[in-house]
Amino acid sequence: MSNIAAISTPSGIGGIAVIRVSGPQAIECVSSHFIPFRTDHALSSRPSHTLTFGQFYASPLAVEQFSADNTKRETCLDEVVVSLYRAPHSFTGEDVVEISCHGSIYIQQQILEALCNSKADTGNSTSNEGRPYIRLAEPGEFTRRAFANGRFDLSQAEAVADLISAQSAASHRIAMQQMKGCISLKLASLHDQLLHLNSLLVLELDFSEEDVEFADRSQLLALAQNIDNEVTRLASTFQAGQAIKNGIPVAIIGAPNVGKSTLLNALLKEDRAIVSDIQGTTRDLIEDTITLGGYLFRFIDTAGIRHTDDRIEQLGIERSHQAASRAQIILLMSEPGIDYPEIEHRNDQHIIYILNKVDTTGQAPVATLDFPVSHISISAKNGTGIDALENALIDCVRVKDSQSDVILTNLRHYEALQDAHSHLLRVIQDLSSHISADLVAEDLLSVIDSLNAILGRSITTQDTLNNIFKNFCIGK
Amino acid sequence: MSNIAAISTPSGIGGIAVIRVSGPQAIECVSSHFIPFRTDHALSSRPSHTLTFGQFYASPLAVEQFSADNTKRETCLDEVVVSLYRAPHSFTGEDVVEISCHGSIYIQQQILEALCNSKADTGNSTSNEGRPYIRLAEPGEFTRRAFANGRFDLSQAEAVADLISAQSAASHRIAMQQMKGCISLKLASLHDQLLHLNSLLVLELDFSEEDVEFADRSQLLALAQNIDNEVTRLASTFQAGQAIKNGIPVAIIGAPNVGKSTLLNALLKEDRAIVSDIQGTTRDLIEDTITLGGYLFRFIDTAGIRHTDDRIEQLGIERSHQAASRAQIILLMSEPGIDYPEIEHRNDQHIIYILNKVDTTGQAPVATLDFPVSHISISAKNGTGIDALENALIDCVRVKDSQSDVILTNLRHYEALQDAHSHLLRVIQDLSSHISADLVAEDLLSVIDSLNAILGRSITTQDTLNNIFKNFCIGK
Repeated sequence: MSNIAAISTPSGIGGIAVIRVSGPQAIECVSSHFIPFRTDHALSSRPSHTLTFGQFYASPLAVEQFSADNTKRETCLDEVVVSLYRAPHSFTGEDVVEISCHGSIYIQQQILEALCNSKADTGNSTSNEGRPYIRLAEPGEFTRRAFANGRFDLSQAEAVADLISAQSAASHRIAMQQMKGCISLKLASLHDQLLHLNSLLVLELDFSEEDVEFADRSQLLALAQNIDNEVTRLASTFQAGQAIKNGIPVAIIGAPNVGKSTLLNALLKEDRAIVSDIQGTTRDLIEDTITLGGYLFRFIDTAGIRHTDDRIEQLGIERSHQAASRAQIILLMSEPGIDYPEIEHRNDQHIIYILNKVDTTGQAPVATLDFPVSHISISAKNGTGIDALENALIDCVRVKDSQSDVILTNLRHYEALQDAHSHLLRVIQDLSSHISADLVAEDLLSVIDSLNAILGRSITTQDTLNNIFKNFCIGK
Repeated sequence: MSNIAAISTPSGIGGIAVIRVSGPQAIECVSSHFIPFRTDHALSSRPSHTLTFGQFYASPLAVEQFSADNTKRETCLDEVVVSLYRAPHSFTGEDVVEISCHGSIYIQQQILEALCNSKADTGNSTSNEGRPYIRLAEPGEFTRRAFANGRFDLSQAEAVADLISAQSAASHRIAMQQMKGCISLKLASLHDQLLHLNSLLVLELDFSEEDVEFADRSQLLALAQNIDNEVTRLASTFQAGQAIKNGIPVAIIGAPNVGKSTLLNALLKEDRAIVSDIQGTTRDLIEDTITLGGYLFRFIDTAGIRHTDDRIEQLGIERSHQAASRAQIILLMSEPGIDYPEIEHRNDQHIIYILNKVDTTGQAPVATLDFPVSHISISAKNGTGIDALENALIDCVRVKDSQSDVILTNLRHYEALQDAHSHLLRVIQDLSSHISADLVAEDLLSVIDSLNAILGRSITTQDTLNNIFKNFCIGK
């Protein structure tokens, strides 16, 4: 196994930066560039989980050169702290060395280059063929090694990437649960049930040898059905999981000039303080997202809906309807004296009726009784009722979120569960149509394989692994 | 002394991020949010310079709550590694705890908020008045504390900021030398000489009591003159230091269409590979800078110089002359058959004559003998001679750079040395005009004060310190 290195901290200038090295010769490689301030603190003899202060040099040097050679002063890149983790008690399960240096881009780059050039720098390449060297780590390669070394299963490895990109309390919580092994536990329970089903099939095989023509398969069927229900339920959390991860789509729909953009601004303004506290977040990536109650909402501003013969305006209105169909929550907006627009919607969509401009209807701010539907009265301009609307939004998501202890956010897991489901349907069909137990067992094996793929336990192709880890950031 | 915390790694998303906490109760404060995976690894009992793996919680919790309270599962923010440095063996000289967490912006922010809200979170504010709490660190506050605790002098503290912002090998080397105490050593030597001068003055005072009318002051004068020479020489390195730090200004001057922009592109293209390796560097901040031989050059493209009656064009040419006057190196450019433009220049400016388009003068690429001045023949279009030009540029700077073992880059140091110089001139004048030794000693004290100000040894005002540290990045 080769030695790998990467800058693990975010790119840019900071107080400090961390360069991570992992591999069987990680300690040896870093040692050749490092002189500790205390002579009894040579890295090779330092215990695991210790911090060592010293100087990092651009050229690899033998310690005996230190006192003799005066030119090496020039090649000192930085005063650094080295964190040492000895195998197997490290993130990757290999020896890991982390170099904390000053956070200049120049220093980060120079240290990384010095480490990765270790072999070439020694001049005579022929005499150093056996010398260990370090190469740049690929994205996610540290985590991939942790998985390969059995530090955690594949779903937990994927959770690391999700955790790093989590933007809200909800997506963070889901990633944390997955990293701690919630999906693994769930699948372990399904796995147990599948093994139980398999043992019952084996039992039936024994019976069949005794020429019992038709075994009673009602228990087996019930069991298979039960497993399939759980698989289907788990798969069904994917939509909510995707929304929580990427932002819950909310469409604001209403007639022209009912105050859709004013409402959006009112919602965004409430959030601005939080957003500005967090540098480099979503604002630059996705427009008009806000975090409410720990959930990320993605608002879709739409053109006003009304009857028109204008071809251009019709196209805009068509897009509003499309936005509504993609949304998980629809804010249907009106004002006193104006009807709510008619839109098509699905059962899995929430609709929140909003009556805007309640401040213009006289002194009494709210006039709800004469209105046909349950709605929230607001004044987007004055901020009246925005709190109530925010709570309504949060409630829509919280209900779905709390219906499940495990929420799926990963497309690969979803597809594996869909596979398991289709194989389970075959198993159920097999059992109903008196197909022999050994053939049923074959289909059952496919179910187990599909579920194991999520954990990376069944035969996982290099392509699959490449696909999973290529989306990681460098240095993790 | 209060406890302070900040994110020390660059802002943004990365594999990992580090939150630094310093102060007398740093360990206690972090402990209340942290549960180690090994029960015998409580932070309070861990030795200095160790790494501890565990879970970080949003709410402060007593360890006894851990097993009893089930809701705390929800508040686990991340699995982290805690680096422990006990006073005085830390960067600041205080107890320092560094929390390495996953590099999600959400997690970084939440951990920082959890730490800084420690006091408020406990609910009952009156009963917790004595409870330690953490506040957000100001820019440079960790380094400021290191200075206050005598970990290094003020010039070394300033070098930390320079080191972090260093963009080239040369500016990095100067900052490293300063951080290691090169300026401090130089000033210590001057300080010794000043004390020696002072002791000679005291000796003269003793003599004067014995009514020796005029002491022989030639030795004192020579000594003062010698000190002043060193002070002046040190101050004179400031211009070169500034150029090395911010980029050595190079003006490309020549008649229209001699190929100035083509040359600039040829120089920049050579460098592009290096620049693209380093994320977020100078390219975005200052246009047209490149690093050659470890030095940062800042190229100033100018309008072509020729005689013209066009008012607008005259203004452009005027600006070219201004650029030339600001430059440290002038690339004076021409082509076969066209004269070099006449420009004014100072003795401290380097002029490199460039003959472009040598590829157009027939098959023989270079025709130098019939040309009056020593010049470099190039073809900016084909890249011929660019190497020679780059070496010439590097040589211009390397000569100045190597003339001094210590190079000044800091305006505050330069001004302090100017102060010392003017007080020294007074001392020299005093000595020449037979002013009594006790009055000379007073002026001598001002010299010592000026030099001590660089190290932060004389009375340093809070304003001065605020000014120095406000330009630091947060977390350092």
